[in-house]
Amino acid sequence: MRSFGSDNHSGIHPKILEAIAAANTDHVFAYGEDPVTARVTEQFRELFGPQATPFLVFNGTGANVLALRTLTRSFNAIICARTAHINVDECGAPEHQTGCKLLSVDTPDGKLTPALVATQLHGFGFQHHSQPGVVSISQPTELGTLYTVDEIRALADQAHRHGLYLHVDGARFGNAVAALGVSPRAMITDTGVDALSFGGTKNGMMLGEAVIFLRPEFAKNAPYERKQLMQLASKMRFIAAQFEAYLRDDLWLELAARSNASAAYMAQRLAEIPEVQLTQRVEVNGLFALLPRQAAEKLRESYFFYDWDEERGEVRWMCSFDTTREDIDGFIDTLRQALQA
Amino acid sequence: MRSFGSDNHSGIHPKILEAIAAANTDHVFAYGEDPVTARVTEQFRELFGPQATPFLVFNGTGANVLALRTLTRSFNAIICARTAHINVDECGAPEHQTGCKLLSVDTPDGKLTPALVATQLHGFGFQHHSQPGVVSISQPTELGTLYTVDEIRALADQAHRHGLYLHVDGARFGNAVAALGVSPRAMITDTGVDALSFGGTKNGMMLGEAVIFLRPEFAKNAPYERKQLMQLASKMRFIAAQFEAYLRDDLWLELAARSNASAAYMAQRLAEIPEVQLTQRVEVNGLFALLPRQAAEKLRESYFFYDWDEERGEVRWMCSFDTTREDIDGFIDTLRQALQA
Amino acid sequence: MRSFGSDNHSGIHPKILEAIAAANTDHVFAYGEDPVTARVTEQFRELFGPQATPFLVFNGTGANVLALRTLTRSFNAIICARTAHINVDECGAPEHQTGCKLLSVDTPDGKLTPALVATQLHGFGFQHHSQPGVVSISQPTELGTLYTVDEIRALADQAHRHGLYLHVDGARFGNAVAALGVSPRAMITDTGVDALSFGGTKNGMMLGEAVIFLRPEFAKNAPYERKQLMQLASKMRFIAAQFEAYLRDDLWLELAARSNASAAYMAQRLAEIPEVQLTQRVEVNGLFALLPRQAAEKLRESYFFYDWDEERGEVRWMCSFDTTREDIDGFIDTLRQALQA
Amino acid sequence: MRSFGSDNHSGIHPKILEAIAAANTDHVFAYGEDPVTARVTEQFRELFGPQATPFLVFNGTGANVLALRTLTRSFNAIICARTAHINVDECGAPEHQTGCKLLSVDTPDGKLTPALVATQLHGFGFQHHSQPGVVSISQPTELGTLYTVDEIRALADQAHRHGLYLHVDGARFGNAVAALGVSPRAMITDTGVDALSFGGTKNGMMLGEAVIFLRPEFAKNAPYERKQLMQLASKMRFIAAQFEAYLRDDLWLELAARSNASAAYMAQRLAEIPEVQLTQRVEVNGLFALLPRQAAEKLRESYFFYDWDEERGEVRWMCSFDTTREDIDGFIDTLRQALQA
Repeated sequence: MRSFGSDNHSGIHPKILEAIAAANTDHVFAYGEDPVTARVTEQFRELFGPQATPFLVFNGTGANVLALRTLTRSFNAIICARTAHINVDECGAPEHQTGCKLLSVDTPDGKLTPALVATQLHGFGFQHHSQPGVVSISQPTELGTLYTVDEIRALADQAHRHGLYLHVDGARFGNAVAALGVSPRAMITDTGVDALSFGGTKNGMMLGEAVIFLRPEFAKNAPYERKQLMQLASKMRFIAAQFEAYLRDDLWLELAARSNASAAYMAQRLAEIPEVQLTQRVEVNGLFALLPRQAAEKLRESYFFYDWDEERGEVRWMCSFDTTREDIDGFIDTLRQALQA
Repeated sequence: MRSFGSDNHSGIHPKILEAIAAANTDHVFAYGEDPVTARVTEQFRELFGPQATPFLVFNGTGANVLALRTLTRSFNAIICARTAHINVDECGAPEHQTGCKLLSVDTPDGKLTPALVATQLHGFGFQHHSQPGVVSISQPTELGTLYTVDEIRALADQAHRHGLYLHVDGARFGNAVAALGVSPRAMITDTGVDALSFGGTKNGMMLGEAVIFLRPEFAKNAPYERKQLMQLASKMRFIAAQFEAYLRDDLWLELAARSNASAAYMAQRLAEIPEVQLTQRVEVNGLFALLPRQAAEKLRESYFFYDWDEERGEVRWMCSFDTTREDIDGFIDTLRQALQA
Repeated sequence: MRSFGSDNHSGIHPKILEAIAAANTDHVFAYGEDPVTARVTEQFRELFGPQATPFLVFNGTGANVLALRTLTRSFNAIICARTAHINVDECGAPEHQTGCKLLSVDTPDGKLTPALVATQLHGFGFQHHSQPGVVSISQPTELGTLYTVDEIRALADQAHRHGLYLHVDGARFGNAVAALGVSPRAMITDTGVDALSFGGTKNGMMLGEAVIFLRPEFAKNAPYERKQLMQLASKMRFIAAQFEAYLRDDLWLELAARSNASAAYMAQRLAEIPEVQLTQRVEVNGLFALLPRQAAEKLRESYFFYDWDEERGEVRWMCSFDTTREDIDGFIDTLRQALQA
Repeated sequence: MRSFGSDNHSGIHPKILEAIAAANTDHVFAYGEDPVTARVTEQFRELFGPQATPFLVFNGTGANVLALRTLTRSFNAIICARTAHINVDECGAPEHQTGCKLLSVDTPDGKLTPALVATQLHGFGFQHHSQPGVVSISQPTELGTLYTVDEIRALADQAHRHGLYLHVDGARFGNAVAALGVSPRAMITDTGVDALSFGGTKNGMMLGEAVIFLRPEFAKNAPYERKQLMQLASKMRFIAAQFEAYLRDDLWLELAARSNASAAYMAQRLAEIPEVQLTQRVEVNGLFALLPRQAAEKLRESYFFYDWDEERGEVRWMCSFDTTREDIDGFIDTLRQALQA
């Protein structure tokens, strides 16, 4: 099976699998007191600066919730795009786990702007109103679009001016860095981001995400929050070892560049097909398209993919780090046949 | 490093690592819709009966919380031994995640009895009182002791008579089954247990636990609870593949039998040393001992292990699936020297 | 001070104050085991039918949360109008206390319709998605509009067809019943509503609300939920005594009819003033209006009232049970002067 | 009915009822923006010092939870006596509402001591362990005993040395102040208490409690916590008016002195009866006694009271502010007859 359904459908990159095996020697302390975790902490500090503190967790929802819970009290509100993963794909875990209200905002492209955020910045000091506490953006967005560094800085500045924090859901963070060619430090630390969910699973890891706190005060409570949120691995070395390989020699950027390039190639091939219309810019590894419903149904006999907006007939296609040119050519061929059927 | 500190200090059994590698082919559906997870479900049903439904999760705290949350509403109380992992080692996750009160009971050996449970069975229908909802026992206990099948049945019967459920924390479930020589079905399903946390990590897996619900009504809500509790893996096949290898050909029992045998051998060697006094029966893979404080300190220069009761000078030594006779002989030698120092 | 700011600005109706005093004799059991509470339960059953079970609580947020928590598990979603009190005026208590996601829907007049609800009825069985569990409507709405009996029935039928429950926030329930001239039983019980927040405070009580569960299964857990939600009064007789007087001889409907009539008279007077434009039908005791900003500012020197939509210049004026014709005439005079200033 | 069951069985003191009536004029702002609440704030500051900030709430559980939630994050533990109201009489609201673990300690007389607290002060910095965050004591205790000022100071000092806060559950605070003849400031502010639940309901109010925060940083978040905990009254003036009368001319101390004196008289009368044995010092308004079971049963035909320890045959008798000498004489007579029966 070759899937364009999700970048979660792919497996583990060989170097990461090797790293798990290489870490499988001898006894080591559990719960992150091992040498691999210590080395990974240093790797993250090289990427984000010495004040950054990473906390390794199991999955993306865990990373987002750990970040958001640490940044808030339950009477806060979290401002996000309506399409945000935290808003639509986490079964209400953010609300349940933080007690906060999510204030979701319609966007054309999955991106918040200071103007959109401003529509939610009211009720400060009014005890009946959830107090705005965090702006959460996804970089890249769930619609495959990107914030520029300046856009992130503008959102961070606005947030801080009003006493809020800025969280970045970087479940596909590598794709953003690879696409923009900007260092993590410039994109995150220097813009003033307060906490980042740094994804690994969707880009070649078996499982594992990290929350990077950019302010030391948050790192103080995070160990207990992580444990209470059931995100503390006992045999941590095997998540750390994956990250060590992932970050070493920029493997993470190499893999992300590949899935980005696959999506770009796919977009180029789709441009030849007039019946298919892309609905979003293809900036990373996802494509959103309108196509005739009958063709979509036919195509689904060979390839699984998600409806994005069932009413409009919009679908989503995702490329993985291991998507090949042949995969795409095969998909395009099948699509052409589906359109002619 | 060779550790007697925790069975979490060991690594991954080679067959389980191979299974991860073997599952790393091609694309598959995420979140448990893959064929490996389907096969593992069948394996668990063979072990526990057709009404059993397993939910794979990341870690032990996640398993316990998923089980307890699914069995309760927040106004319930959960009765457990004071030494229960849920009571002392999960940073309050059970209270925070379920909203329930934990009623912990002193025990001599980590085991609840109907008489001990009965001390907490009051206040039914009294709206000021957390309503007893679940009895939670650990099999084996955190003190390395075991419940017989009859003892489990007696607790299940008592629980059900009063409208409670029985949960079993089986973080080291393999050690219990291997030691007692009783089938999982006889020990769990036939005694009336309602939910089991089935551990894998401490016995040779990289990471992964399962919650086994023995009643279909609990399986209905559990998928959403698992997701909201941040315990749903995207690349689930790699947890499932571990379980598949773990359960195949009774590898789990073979590994558990090894750590049990190591502990038995260690107990036998310790019997030669009059200055060391075991404080609990050695029924599975853990040993609890009193020894002169100075000797303990000296021993710690070579081996890490936990204090169990610092005031009494009681310590805990754990054997892992990969603990060897040489490890133990070396430990005993060092201990003898420490005692003479 | 005479206020059009809120029906919470008024005090206690004399008959209700007398009832508090009359209940102040001798010792009685606490926590609702008193004879007054027993009588009030019967009064509510006369209104709503024998299967109705009332739970007296302190305030409106407490009533809504008790109802919603009893009807849900935390992985559910609650569908409501964007203007719903539970969505905008309870500081996130519904999310925090139930763990559920609120799915709020834009409406022209504060009213949900089956078509609007249908936009949120998806993701059933999809574990990533908060499972729709409750539709919550306000009768009357926060915009002073009313659902007909048929409209409520249609929403209840739709909810039940999809496995959801229907909750009605009746913080101003008396105003709805008085305006529509329909019995509580016909409006609530016979339409299939599952739980009602029955308000007292805004209509002449000192403090006190009731949650009416229309299905016995919810009444089973509600006592413990109420206690755990900190909504169980010890000297309950004094909340019950208020309700007894409130319900006796239809005092509640008499008071609601008065504030409704005041609003109708005020609307009639406003019709004489071309610079003021009502933005919603005046069906109960609230008026929503656009007027020149300068006039609003001037008017505020004499009368407090809330902005409803600051950007549009829309304001809200509320009439209380004790609002008099003179109050309104005075207000209109001041408004006229403000417009000429 | 004359009850020795609970001080919640009594009604409202006439002066407090008058104060409610007196506040029932005109319209005023809701939610605490009224002049009565402002005056009560000043009264509390006169009692506790200028840094004290009171938050009025509905009931005792609400007061305790607001205090504890404001002082903690969910990974904290709250240390209390096993007999503490928060531990046994609030249906798990503290756990559910704060997410914290309660660490309850056996005591002979309901009182924590530094030595008892010290048994729970471990695991600091250990991520698996709920981090001790608050020591909560009841003054007077649920067993009718009192802490001296020095004892409170010692507990506050110990708490602060270890980074914890000290909370005092003063549901019957007036009884403590009246009995000890020490000013609230000396007992609470000067000893270093961080937050106090200041009771009113059990001592002559209709309903109403206050949380007094002694540090300004807690007062910052408390308005939102109070609202989210559903403890914000809309017609606040009627709770404030009760407190105004309660605190004016030391009415609260006069009433508390009365119930204290009643209990003292009752203890004196009981001393004449050899079959009845008091089990606790009678320092405020409660008595705990062992008496023959048959006599207790007989006595219950005339008077309701609670078993305290059913197994031992220990019962609790409470005096209220309106308990009279005749009430007690009648009770003693009935008790004598019951003993002879």
